[in-house]
Amino acid sequence: MGKKVFHELISLDEAKEKLFNNLKKIIPVPTESETILVKNALGRITAEPVLAKFSSPYFHSAAMDGYAVKSQKTFLATEREPVRLQIGVDAQWIETGDPLPDGFDAVIPVEDVTLRDGFIEIYSSVPPYNDVRPIGEDIVATELIIPESHVVRAVDIGAILASGIIEIKVRKKPIIGIIPTGSELIQPEKLKERMPQPPELIEYNSAVLENLIKEAIAEPKVYPIVPDEEKEIKNAILNAIKECDIVLLNAGSGYGKEDFTYKVINELGNVIINGVAIKPGKPFIAGFIKNKPILGIPGYPVSAFLCFDLFVKPLIELFLGISVKKEEKLKAILSRQISSNMGVDEFVRVKVGRVGGKYTVTPMGRGAGLLMSVVRADGYIVIPKGSEGFSQGAEVKVNLWRNKEEIDNTVVCIGSHDNTLDVLYNFLRKSYPDVTLSSAHVGSMGGLVAIKKGEAHMAGTHLLDEVTGEYNIPFIKKLMPDKKVVLINLVYRIQGFIVKKGNPKNIRGFNDLTNENVVFINRQAGSGTRLLLDKHLKELGISPSQIKGYDTDEYTHMGIASAVLTGRADVGLGILAAAQALDLDFIPVAKERYDILIPYEFLELKIIQAVLRVIQEDKEFRKAVEKLGGYDTTDMGKIFYSN
Amino acid sequence: MGKKVFHELISLDEAKEKLFNNLKKIIPVPTESETILVKNALGRITAEPVLAKFSSPYFHSAAMDGYAVKSQKTFLATEREPVRLQIGVDAQWIETGDPLPDGFDAVIPVEDVTLRDGFIEIYSSVPPYNDVRPIGEDIVATELIIPESHVVRAVDIGAILASGIIEIKVRKKPIIGIIPTGSELIQPEKLKERMPQPPELIEYNSAVLENLIKEAIAEPKVYPIVPDEEKEIKNAILNAIKECDIVLLNAGSGYGKEDFTYKVINELGNVIINGVAIKPGKPFIAGFIKNKPILGIPGYPVSAFLCFDLFVKPLIELFLGISVKKEEKLKAILSRQISSNMGVDEFVRVKVGRVGGKYTVTPMGRGAGLLMSVVRADGYIVIPKGSEGFSQGAEVKVNLWRNKEEIDNTVVCIGSHDNTLDVLYNFLRKSYPDVTLSSAHVGSMGGLVAIKKGEAHMAGTHLLDEVTGEYNIPFIKKLMPDKKVVLINLVYRIQGFIVKKGNPKNIRGFNDLTNENVVFINRQAGSGTRLLLDKHLKELGISPSQIKGYDTDEYTHMGIASAVLTGRADVGLGILAAAQALDLDFIPVAKERYDILIPYEFLELKIIQAVLRVIQEDKEFRKAVEKLGGYDTTDMGKIFYSN
Repeated sequence: MGKKVFHELISLDEAKEKLFNNLKKIIPVPTESETILVKNALGRITAEPVLAKFSSPYFHSAAMDGYAVKSQKTFLATEREPVRLQIGVDAQWIETGDPLPDGFDAVIPVEDVTLRDGFIEIYSSVPPYNDVRPIGEDIVATELIIPESHVVRAVDIGAILASGIIEIKVRKKPIIGIIPTGSELIQPEKLKERMPQPPELIEYNSAVLENLIKEAIAEPKVYPIVPDEEKEIKNAILNAIKECDIVLLNAGSGYGKEDFTYKVINELGNVIINGVAIKPGKPFIAGFIKNKPILGIPGYPVSAFLCFDLFVKPLIELFLGISVKKEEKLKAILSRQISSNMGVDEFVRVKVGRVGGKYTVTPMGRGAGLLMSVVRADGYIVIPKGSEGFSQGAEVKVNLWRNKEEIDNTVVCIGSHDNTLDVLYNFLRKSYPDVTLSSAHVGSMGGLVAIKKGEAHMAGTHLLDEVTGEYNIPFIKKLMPDKKVVLINLVYRIQGFIVKKGNPKNIRGFNDLTNENVVFINRQAGSGTRLLLDKHLKELGISPSQIKGYDTDEYTHMGIASAVLTGRADVGLGILAAAQALDLDFIPVAKERYDILIPYEFLELKIIQAVLRVIQEDKEFRKAVEKLGGYDTTDMGKIFYSN
Repeated sequence: MGKKVFHELISLDEAKEKLFNNLKKIIPVPTESETILVKNALGRITAEPVLAKFSSPYFHSAAMDGYAVKSQKTFLATEREPVRLQIGVDAQWIETGDPLPDGFDAVIPVEDVTLRDGFIEIYSSVPPYNDVRPIGEDIVATELIIPESHVVRAVDIGAILASGIIEIKVRKKPIIGIIPTGSELIQPEKLKERMPQPPELIEYNSAVLENLIKEAIAEPKVYPIVPDEEKEIKNAILNAIKECDIVLLNAGSGYGKEDFTYKVINELGNVIINGVAIKPGKPFIAGFIKNKPILGIPGYPVSAFLCFDLFVKPLIELFLGISVKKEEKLKAILSRQISSNMGVDEFVRVKVGRVGGKYTVTPMGRGAGLLMSVVRADGYIVIPKGSEGFSQGAEVKVNLWRNKEEIDNTVVCIGSHDNTLDVLYNFLRKSYPDVTLSSAHVGSMGGLVAIKKGEAHMAGTHLLDEVTGEYNIPFIKKLMPDKKVVLINLVYRIQGFIVKKGNPKNIRGFNDLTNENVVFINRQAGSGTRLLLDKHLKELGISPSQIKGYDTDEYTHMGIASAVLTGRADVGLGILAAAQALDLDFIPVAKERYDILIPYEFLELKIIQAVLRVIQEDKEFRKAVEKLGGYDTTDMGKIFYSN
């Protein structure tokens, strides 16, 4: 339970060096090898060079259908004075792949001869080995087919078999044990029978680690959940240490009353790392028990994911003797400033977008508990220890989790949030599986700014002009008078109050927001929904200071609905779809127009054409949107403005 | 047996369109789905969007170890006038992950309070939800976790389980049947018992196709070998058609007497493609039997490999509804001119090298039977139908089979061939698994030219100056007086006559090469070995015209040995190692110096440092070279020249 401060922790580089050097001292790596059938060797790593056992072809064979001949006897042949060779004596019918008969040294393709009375007539001479595949044309006995430390591919398997080898030595996959610990954990399978009850937590880290291990060409072994009991944890470890090459203990590496990792490793073996100056992943522990590495992986899912990447994967690579799949790197421009604690290497998940040939990178949520930020991220950047962060516009190096082609095929949608965007994404994937839609929710005004700055392909917007009562167009004309753009309607949607089931605070209108016992949750400044609220408050003469929670904000409709559902607020302004998704009640306030703004220059891009086709032509998409409830698709795809 | 000419064949684009459109008309693609456990879904493709079943966390929980409090009661706390909260009444001990007790709305970390007489003292106020992970912080019920047509990753599995879902719908893997046909084929397993006998061919295409299918996220099903009997082939097809989604028949798609593919498909169903204007792969056939696609895959291994890529993989992708792994593309400069038949799209395997920041591409052997050219290639270029080829220096688009990083980490070695280079490659891989050595054999002089032109990192060379009797240095000084280079010895090696076992033609010296019954096999012009030959011939006053086979040349020592072994020649000049590898006899002629030339500018490259460390420090490498026989490693790693 002691407080741990950063300067006590060793750096990532020190930690890695310590762990890997200790391992190399104790265990001979790369790991031992095993002999397997060549045909099962896909993706395995060769433990020694593979040398051809015999040649391929291993006999001179015909490369064409035709006649085997003795080349010497063809030397005088010309168009005018063809040479006649007797079939069965000086010429023999031969098919592609057949062995050249003894005494013959060339093949003449069937289409180059004339058949006459048991003779063939030929019109030009052929050199020795004409249309013959000589022995070893493809593979010469003893030659190197593939070297050591090579990941076997399908084509290698063919060449190895062709050279007469049916078994090869490959590196043994290290066995990585995973021991999930925690009295509150339940197996996901339990959900078949019943819903979880607090404080139960679904044990999903093992499944992530297990599959990361598989991807790293190693063998996972998941043990049953162990409660937070020192003795049981010890027994589980001693058992796993016998069966595995590396053991992962998840979690219990922190400093809480029920965190036993440090104590247990310290008693059974020795701890070599206790905490590392990284974020997330700080409480990482490593040690050795009976000469086997045992790692204490923190419990937060992002920490566990990162610790796998930083420590477990490199350990596996030591066992295998090669680098497994590497992350592609990309240089990109930071769309906004990002700061970090100077005491740690911080790993920040990011979105990367390519708009107009320029790669832009945007930091995402940084909590260690936000697994979805890994799911949605395109990669990560590192803010090194000793740096306070990067300023907006800085060029940073991104380690990619998706491939670059995928990023190049991603529609960057920045602006107001609407649930139809998720539906659009799904329909896009269905018809154009190569196209991805990445949407960032920064409000309508933020979307227009992103379009103006060339950081987005499209923006969702629903800005109501108080003066004209017109949607979006006045704002576009004012903000980017010279930019050629197209404004296309997506939907009309109903905005209203999202309240708890049964509307216990009896919200009927904007005046009710000022009630003493009502806590409101707002949308961020610059969002169309906040403009809508402000417009109504102004008309009714209500001051924001009269509303509790006016200054607490969320970035999405689902965020508003979630705040209401979980009791953080009594009411918020949002769309019907969000209320329905979480089974909340909804009091309609206004119907508004939600449009999509696209710069003219992007209209011809394949990825934007795909979006337009879904919006303008896909009837199933229209139906799916209507099914959400609260949407009017009358003008879907209609162009409301272009300049 | 009819002759097929190119203009009768449909183009690749037409063929693809025809095949894929026919499929789409007949079969609803993407394929049907199946429900599987989430934890087994790695690498599978979602058949529908995955929406969160419940939120994560699904209860408000502590984000830190500390005390649960009511935030309202902390509002007056200051450093000077701490607020005291009674444990058990206004404060409760709570650990990370524990549910927030009813009536409490914030957590104060243990390190921020002082414990005193059953009370905690706090020194600053905390807002509601301080250090609390609210419900839905990570995942909000109903939100989109991953869309349809998404390849499931380890982290996705975690998020899906966290959201309460344990089974998902994924696309069914299409089952691809492979029927190997050919009376001469034998299973590789037969080699356990005995050596193959002509005309037997080892059946390795199925193993390649099987593993390519696995890589393409489909399910292979390999059937037993079927002899070239029309009836048996028919039965095999009818059986496979019942069990599979696509059937591949390999081979028999040509026009030989025993090629039944066309006939059989035509009788059981209908042929839609018979031959395509591509090279290799021309005799590709496609049709439908009982509404299932059946493809006639040509028998040459490179043709089979290419037809898989061009036709089978896209078909699988139609079934799966996504694009499987795509080839990276790269632009590179052609190192030499390449021409092609205008009637076909030709797919040429290439080597790609990155030297001095410039990517250079070199075409490889083009025969459809050369599987090793696929094994060794870095990728391929396409010479489109209607083009005669590309000139030297042209920029071409390469489709990569290796990743770019691998190519960037490849030492490009162009020059004379020596077997120690293979050994060097293996030792390099062993110690530096990320480094690859790619060697092209163009002779010593070709190597020097490549170094001069900046196309190689290093060159193997053994050029004997007739005048001074000195190796390499006079040539380097003459060819590149201004280039800063380092010349390092690899080995001394014995050159000699490679002859058949028992030396039946009784070769003793260069004079014997002029004997009436002796056929010689030469090395190409510009090779050090040829210089050596010419020097001796000149000294002895022998004219090249007196030697049968002087004008037939090979590019490697192994090529010479192979020609002698297979009877294409009686004798050639080469190194002992090559003779020994193929168990041939060897008559020593001269000991020569084999050096490695490296431009000064590349010495500090990590990949070159790795090479130098192996040559100069690895004693195991030295031993392995000596074990080859015929090598003297006395000066290995010694610098003989630098300017």
